[in-house]
Amino acid sequence: MSTPSPFLHSILILIVSFLCKASAIQQNGARYLGNFWSSSRTLSVRASKYQYETKYFQQKLDHFSFADLPSFSQRYLINTQHWEGPSRSAPIFLYCGNEGDIEWFADNTGFVWEIAPRFGAMVIFPEHRYYGESMPYGSKEEAYKNATTLSYLTAEQALADYAVLITELKRNLSAQACPVVLFGGSYGGMLAAWMRLKYPHISIGALASSAPVLQFEDLVPPETFYSIVSNGFRRESMSCFNTIKESWDVINKVGQIDGGLAQLTKTFHICRELESIDNLSNWLESAYSYLAMVNYPYPTDFLMPLPGSPIKEVCRKIDSLPDGASVLQRIFEGISIYYNYTGKVDCFNLNDDPHGMSGWDWQACTEMIMPMASNMTTSMFPEFYYDPKSNEEQCLKDFHVKPRPTWITTEFGGHAFKSALKAFGSNIIFSNGLLDPWSGGSVLGDVSETIVALTTKKGAHHLDLRAATAEDPDWLLDQRSSEIKLIRGWLDEHYDEKKAVSAYR
Amino acid sequence: MSTPSPFLHSILILIVSFLCKASAIQQNGARYLGNFWSSSRTLSVRASKYQYETKYFQQKLDHFSFADLPSFSQRYLINTQHWEGPSRSAPIFLYCGNEGDIEWFADNTGFVWEIAPRFGAMVIFPEHRYYGESMPYGSKEEAYKNATTLSYLTAEQALADYAVLITELKRNLSAQACPVVLFGGSYGGMLAAWMRLKYPHISIGALASSAPVLQFEDLVPPETFYSIVSNGFRRESMSCFNTIKESWDVINKVGQIDGGLAQLTKTFHICRELESIDNLSNWLESAYSYLAMVNYPYPTDFLMPLPGSPIKEVCRKIDSLPDGASVLQRIFEGISIYYNYTGKVDCFNLNDDPHGMSGWDWQACTEMIMPMASNMTTSMFPEFYYDPKSNEEQCLKDFHVKPRPTWITTEFGGHAFKSALKAFGSNIIFSNGLLDPWSGGSVLGDVSETIVALTTKKGAHHLDLRAATAEDPDWLLDQRSSEIKLIRGWLDEHYDEKKAVSAYR
Repeated sequence: MSTPSPFLHSILILIVSFLCKASAIQQNGARYLGNFWSSSRTLSVRASKYQYETKYFQQKLDHFSFADLPSFSQRYLINTQHWEGPSRSAPIFLYCGNEGDIEWFADNTGFVWEIAPRFGAMVIFPEHRYYGESMPYGSKEEAYKNATTLSYLTAEQALADYAVLITELKRNLSAQACPVVLFGGSYGGMLAAWMRLKYPHISIGALASSAPVLQFEDLVPPETFYSIVSNGFRRESMSCFNTIKESWDVINKVGQIDGGLAQLTKTFHICRELESIDNLSNWLESAYSYLAMVNYPYPTDFLMPLPGSPIKEVCRKIDSLPDGASVLQRIFEGISIYYNYTGKVDCFNLNDDPHGMSGWDWQACTEMIMPMASNMTTSMFPEFYYDPKSNEEQCLKDFHVKPRPTWITTEFGGHAFKSALKAFGSNIIFSNGLLDPWSGGSVLGDVSETIVALTTKKGAHHLDLRAATAEDPDWLLDQRSSEIKLIRGWLDEHYDEKKAVSAYR
Repeated sequence: MSTPSPFLHSILILIVSFLCKASAIQQNGARYLGNFWSSSRTLSVRASKYQYETKYFQQKLDHFSFADLPSFSQRYLINTQHWEGPSRSAPIFLYCGNEGDIEWFADNTGFVWEIAPRFGAMVIFPEHRYYGESMPYGSKEEAYKNATTLSYLTAEQALADYAVLITELKRNLSAQACPVVLFGGSYGGMLAAWMRLKYPHISIGALASSAPVLQFEDLVPPETFYSIVSNGFRRESMSCFNTIKESWDVINKVGQIDGGLAQLTKTFHICRELESIDNLSNWLESAYSYLAMVNYPYPTDFLMPLPGSPIKEVCRKIDSLPDGASVLQRIFEGISIYYNYTGKVDCFNLNDDPHGMSGWDWQACTEMIMPMASNMTTSMFPEFYYDPKSNEEQCLKDFHVKPRPTWITTEFGGHAFKSALKAFGSNIIFSNGLLDPWSGGSVLGDVSETIVALTTKKGAHHLDLRAATAEDPDWLLDQRSSEIKLIRGWLDEHYDEKKAVSAYR
């Protein structure tokens, strides 16, 4: 981040604004997934670490109707350098692109690139529709114009895009016999798992990392996410947890007095005077939540430049101020670890565009309804309940669209999801780090012999998909090694079976 | 069919016109499925044999996009008289409505009604969108106006309709724990099987009767359908087969001479003078194909009033004319068994509306692309090849829509369909009668321990789903008895497992 170019700088402002959504503390947790990835764009403006060709494929805008709609060009990144080809039925590793520019996913999913050569595998990273360059209607401006143009931005359409792309690609390469292994992190992990359920003929297995497939309706308690975030702080220090828990009341009280907003603006080094307490609360709450997601064991610059185990650092700061330091002073010092680890930011820009048409915000207002709440017993956040009505009102206001809160569970299985997976699925790894607040909405226990959970106590949001580093702890090496073994097992079984099937047919 | 009302009469004309499509011998066999059912409407205009309530459910027009479209009212027939209710987790039998008025399916699917009481089961027959009363845009006229209004008439949307309906219905009845068993015949059977693959959490098993799920792309040879039709005649009599095989040339020769069309018109008792040989050939070819489908062992009035084993009767007629009778005379006498078994028709009306907007014709021009051909070695029909280009041209002309011939295989599995089913599915019965020309595109061997094929040598198109009659042969009783046992097995296993799952969770 040294001497950022003007271009980088403008992106940074954009990102900070992404992080500070003006909605009250996020009741529909889905928004975190999207903003997480959108945020990750800041720090990756550089030449890709990995080699690939960039190609484009014409996709139908609506796979499930025959409306006369313009097709669009889906971008995909492909590397066949290590692929052993159709003659050896060599595997194809496909990363299910999620809610962002596919180049950033490619850059941040080193695991796939690193293991492909040892499998003789082709690597493909198709981009999710409505993100990056894969824009219907020719441009982002047109694609994001209104609810009508955005209406084909759904998970089912994205799954169908992947199914069509891989089928055509295999046909063109005479690679029909080449098994496909899916990868995905976060929402991409959900897509990978759902692909296994909905398109079992397309792939032989999926690594779904940090995929909160159960974070819908009432499948898990709505308090789960914020409880895990809170636990991350409590684990480090009870006094840190308590300071944060107290801070909301203090902010409220200060904010309500005459000149209080000015005082808060000053205390927190906000560039422009705060217009409401909510803006500040959200800014803080976002930081705590993202800290829990990127609570990686070694220094990263994924979302923000951060030390290893950043929550420990935040708490150390909060706790280490001398007696007599105010709650707000402690919070400011703590949060600065997140927002200003490099120490180069003079003041924080909370400018926000609450009605900005971000793709994931659309998804969070249509299908990805992930109820969230915070209760006083387990959470350090203010108490709040999930209110579907107000969520619906907000979505109608922002996008003129009505959420379908029961659609994902109808389409992919609700309470019956695990038993459907058990009876119908095979070869899925649900990998999770238990520090990650999304882990509570994922699958944490083995579902069957071949649908397995790999959890690490100290892992955070899809850490396993990241490139190997010299600082990787043993438990992370073990997790990745288990993943490689499982994938190899799927492939071995596939090759064995294929011989059998060939003989049988 | 005695003294038909004017209403009945007008439907009869409509039906005869359905039977005689003006396209050359049907290259896209899908059209037969739809017309078969459309045709069945003639003879069922009567009070239903079965008791049910008629209800309506508001459905989204496009489940897979958020376009601002009007919802539509889906009709469903429901009987809860024998249902033992949620407290006993009593089953729900759901027939996947296909391409026609749901009341006719309910009337012609006696098997489901007859077995429901012994299972304490609720019976539901939801209607397929765009058929019967389940019309988007308020009326058939509006729904069938153009390619845009028709564009949501797809199998995937219909499957989603069933998934949403059953999920909501169960929620409203607090019947979430009640297992759903699916039934379907022909295209409805395909939907039932696909539901098992795509919505495994929605049902516990499916009886897919005469479901040609493999009649796509190159999964089975395109000659299959017409070869089976031809075999039906060859089996009865080689001379009958040969007479039919010769007849096409004779018709061509006669048709091409001066006054030839008039001569053919007279020979075949056509009301209005033939405009082309094709019209006559199609009329004959349709009769042979439908005869093979309804080659039931006892007299029926399903499609037309017919004797038992009607192909035997047709061939007996063709063969029994005295030596010296012309080929065309033989053909006319034979075909009259089909078109005029009651002897009440003075002349045949071949009027056709080749561009009539029938729902199934739309489906056959969009997703349901079932390639068909006829070769001289196995077929009694003229030789022809499947020509995707001309099919596409016809669809562009008729509906301004371009077929997607590889979509169904991408969505539901192509060559990998059986292995996907084996790995991912369970509890499907593919029942077929081998006299049925659709049997060649269905699943005729067990796929796994729980995905089984029940075939009868002498059965025709979804005979097993029809109501029991006194004339049912033993092999039919056996087939139905096996089906009942298998369904009971699914339910028993489900109840056993549920206890285990409840204890485990």
